[in-house]
Amino acid sequence: MARKASLSGFPELLPEERLVENHVLDTLRETFELHGFSNIETRSVETKEQLLRKGEIDKEVYGISRLLDENSTTKSEKEQLALHFDLTVPFARYVVENAGYLNFPFMRYQMQKVWRGERPQDGRFREFTQADVDVVGDGALPFRYDVELALVVIESLRKLEIGDFKLRVNNRKLSEGFYRGIGLDDTAGVLRSIDKLEKIGPDAVAQLLKDELGASDEQAQAALNLAQICTEDTSFVNEVKKLGVEHALLEEGLRELEEVVGQAAKRAPGNIVADLSIARGLDYYTGTVYETVLVGHEKLGSICSGGRYESLASNGKRNFPGVGLSIGVTRLVSRIISQKMAEPTRKVPSAVLIALTSDQTWSDAQDVADSLRQRGIACEVSATAAKFGKQIKFAEKRGIPFVWFVSTKEDGSLKHEVKDIRSGEQIEADPQHWAPSTEDLHVRIEAAQ
Amino acid sequence: MARKASLSGFPELLPEERLVENHVLDTLRETFELHGFSNIETRSVETKEQLLRKGEIDKEVYGISRLLDENSTTKSEKEQLALHFDLTVPFARYVVENAGYLNFPFMRYQMQKVWRGERPQDGRFREFTQADVDVVGDGALPFRYDVELALVVIESLRKLEIGDFKLRVNNRKLSEGFYRGIGLDDTAGVLRSIDKLEKIGPDAVAQLLKDELGASDEQAQAALNLAQICTEDTSFVNEVKKLGVEHALLEEGLRELEEVVGQAAKRAPGNIVADLSIARGLDYYTGTVYETVLVGHEKLGSICSGGRYESLASNGKRNFPGVGLSIGVTRLVSRIISQKMAEPTRKVPSAVLIALTSDQTWSDAQDVADSLRQRGIACEVSATAAKFGKQIKFAEKRGIPFVWFVSTKEDGSLKHEVKDIRSGEQIEADPQHWAPSTEDLHVRIEAAQ
Repeated sequence: MARKASLSGFPELLPEERLVENHVLDTLRETFELHGFSNIETRSVETKEQLLRKGEIDKEVYGISRLLDENSTTKSEKEQLALHFDLTVPFARYVVENAGYLNFPFMRYQMQKVWRGERPQDGRFREFTQADVDVVGDGALPFRYDVELALVVIESLRKLEIGDFKLRVNNRKLSEGFYRGIGLDDTAGVLRSIDKLEKIGPDAVAQLLKDELGASDEQAQAALNLAQICTEDTSFVNEVKKLGVEHALLEEGLRELEEVVGQAAKRAPGNIVADLSIARGLDYYTGTVYETVLVGHEKLGSICSGGRYESLASNGKRNFPGVGLSIGVTRLVSRIISQKMAEPTRKVPSAVLIALTSDQTWSDAQDVADSLRQRGIACEVSATAAKFGKQIKFAEKRGIPFVWFVSTKEDGSLKHEVKDIRSGEQIEADPQHWAPSTEDLHVRIEAAQ
Repeated sequence: MARKASLSGFPELLPEERLVENHVLDTLRETFELHGFSNIETRSVETKEQLLRKGEIDKEVYGISRLLDENSTTKSEKEQLALHFDLTVPFARYVVENAGYLNFPFMRYQMQKVWRGERPQDGRFREFTQADVDVVGDGALPFRYDVELALVVIESLRKLEIGDFKLRVNNRKLSEGFYRGIGLDDTAGVLRSIDKLEKIGPDAVAQLLKDELGASDEQAQAALNLAQICTEDTSFVNEVKKLGVEHALLEEGLRELEEVVGQAAKRAPGNIVADLSIARGLDYYTGTVYETVLVGHEKLGSICSGGRYESLASNGKRNFPGVGLSIGVTRLVSRIISQKMAEPTRKVPSAVLIALTSDQTWSDAQDVADSLRQRGIACEVSATAAKFGKQIKFAEKRGIPFVWFVSTKEDGSLKHEVKDIRSGEQIEADPQHWAPSTEDLHVRIEAAQ
């Protein structure tokens, strides 16, 4: 990604960069599965109707049409299909369509490409990978999944060793209850203004609240006081209570947020923040809301966001509430690569190159390769008996640590030697038993110091 | 996939079916990496110019365009981009664009979705996954990679335990040399006719050769004699020689095919066939050609095809020859699922459900989950303290083999018990040390007996 993409907004990785991305995807997969989440994929296309019904035209949807149909004048499938712009809309459709085959609460993760025709810029792409993790219930979904989701994403991000990050959490019930408690009933309007806090500052937000929502000085100040509360433990509860506002919804939101923050602070101290300014636009959220910043990379935007929705999906008769988050894999990986936050220990999977001492030893070399592979040691066989120096250089360029030589002794039997090309040490070895150190066995991704 | 896709040609899997697909993808990845192949992904879109320059309109390419641009009258990006229909065209572009960053011979695998607007039918989809494995050289590529590629795909397919399959191999040089040797110089025309052998039979092919290419009875018969040679070892060499045709290209092709078949028959007997009727359409192949049938599922078509191309890619100055194969993952997986050729041992990743004995034990249950997960044991925690029977049923439905109970003893300390819900056996257990059997640790995919 240091190179310029040949199509703006459609990044492609070199093999050694893809190792980093695969490490991220593997780590997420492993963590999600340890927590019991099942993997699914949805098709890349949805009907335009499905994609646009929430008025999401601003996501800049890509329609698709068969080139063969383009000159057709009839309203064919051409008019109907588009690439998905997130994984939430397809997941909601999938849940409704397959409800009869799923066990609820249904815990799923999904790691796929999505497309948005936005103007490309740092951290924004037209094709990118998201990793979504959600739980969806049939009719009801216990609140505790809001806690579980915070824990699973914190654990996932910790395992990625991307440095310090903060999962910032708030609760819509808390904010809305508070606003109602101070007499501001257009809670969506207040949220919309508060959402601009970081961009325009408190004075401008207060002015907005007064101008657009008719708030009094006291009301505007109270809303701002709430938004400025930000703690790494449950002490926010007292800070809110000190503001002296009372409302049943506020109480409920406080209890919920206290549970999320309390459990996360206990199990993963340092990565959770109760940040009462978090609004997450309007979206569909109805309780917990999450976003995540990489400390020192705040301008990158949130790398993992989500929340609770009382109605993720519905088919008229049944309602499916959900809670979940979406990790911006491409955004994260592009930063890891461009900042060299982590690098692979070599460029290729092979731990060993089996060199050819003569063109006749290729089959013997393949025998060695078979033995090594049966024991999980990745290796490749030289295709030609070039000079040893050239074969060693071939390995060196790729970072392959070992070169294996097969030669024929005077009595006709085979002699096996393996050379660590970093130290130059060369020893006799048995293809049935020799193994590299655990460190050298697989490519590893090392976090920068 | 037993269910009908809600959009014809765009299949979606249930979570337990996706386990089978992931098993296939994981197995391929593992095998390719053991052989030293690096993973890459290319963007999903190419310029239409790139996709159509080989006149591949028959692949029914899907163009994409931003919905916002659809009413625009200017020639915007709308006119330019389309979804790739295979992974070879994008790979060729990637090689040329990144040649300066790659080490040649470049061994890569690539597992991605591709799109074709064809009429959906059994084994044919509009969105499907391919797994491609290729080696590409800079200027030259040693022939031995043709052997290596046969070996890696045979090993991959064997590991999938999909039953008997045959990798059918031929060599373009062999066929073309033979045709020239008998005086038929329109070798492409002969190949096109021979390619119809299975569909229309030998008599009709002979007629075609005579009518369209002006072949004599003897020439037509000779071409058919060659196409009928089919051996599981290198005995095809003598059978060809018995036909008494001589040509330098024929000799070269014979030597090459003998090496592929000889090595594969030695290392993987029973899965290789020298089948001299294989033509693989016209495509770009110039030497070895491969296709693969699943025995008993011949109507499914080839599940893995490819070959050698002297010019996979070129940028004018440099030429990049390659050899590779493409596995039709979706085609294969859809068959595995519909025929129940393999099934997962359970529906979800979790090996253990930590039950709640009361609502207050949730945090204790999370402690147990943490201990198990740290040791790689996937588990989930009940969200509510429902009746034990209900919690056990929750586990049963998903195939989770163990339920863990945490309760408080009279002295205030915790009591841990784990129940194997299949046998009913319940024992005391220590969250720091208890582990399920290796068989129960992860979901496994079991081949049908």
